[in-house]
Amino acid sequence: MFKIEHIGIAVKDLAASNELFAKLLGRPHYKIEEVASEHVNTSFFQTGESKVELLQATAPESAIAKFIERKGEGMHHIAFEVSDIRAEMKRLAAEGFRLLNEEPKRGADNKWVCFLHPKSANGVLVELCQSIPEE
Amino acid sequence: MFKIEHIGIAVKDLAASNELFAKLLGRPHYKIEEVASEHVNTSFFQTGESKVELLQATAPESAIAKFIERKGEGMHHIAFEVSDIRAEMKRLAAEGFRLLNEEPKRGADNKWVCFLHPKSANGVLVELCQSIPEE
Repeated sequence: MFKIEHIGIAVKDLAASNELFAKLLGRPHYKIEEVASEHVNTSFFQTGESKVELLQATAPESAIAKFIERKGEGMHHIAFEVSDIRAEMKRLAAEGFRLLNEEPKRGADNKWVCFLHPKSANGVLVELCQSIPEE
Repeated sequence: MFKIEHIGIAVKDLAASNELFAKLLGRPHYKIEEVASEHVNTSFFQTGESKVELLQATAPESAIAKFIERKGEGMHHIAFEVSDIRAEMKRLAAEGFRLLNEEPKRGADNKWVCFLHPKSANGVLVELCQSIPEE
């Protein structure tokens, strides 16, 4: 694990939260990206080498909608950058962590991602992510 | 806000969680520190320019004990490094954020810290922290 790639925060209203986080961080978001497969709209703020990712559900079946219903808005996941996601998935599975996807899947921001079940990681939803080289 | 200084994670059993996070992050914690005024025992892991801070309550009145009772183990706060905490506190209060302490207080890891109320920050407990120069 090289660094915290981003912290994911579940929000109800992306436009309002973009304004709020721009005030908090002292700079605006630098992009908005929809991840249709996950039913989320995301925005990104840079802070040092890491990002803050805001996530708003675009459909009731989105994991973000369910999270907010259960726990309210707030920190949703922590993502770590890895250089070889398949090797890390294998290593962590062998260490007893439960993977939420068996194969890396495409996430926001041009990454391969894999999530670890919070039950196997102290209640923390952990994301591994590896940048996909541009073609 | 320069960078994510650390992510605080509430845990029930620091020794067990130190082992778990060592497996997750691929390296052990580099220090343990008690913050008696906050009734917590903390441990730190370096990951890139940021840290993961595990927090275990040492008394039932600790905010960490109450958090775990209400929400279970998991991500508790996000801390941003600032260069002038009083100036940031003033700026953020003027922007409508609610400060949980009026004066900077001494936190773990030799920092001045101030927390923002989650209700004013999208459900996220935000910590500002500024390193205290060594004497």
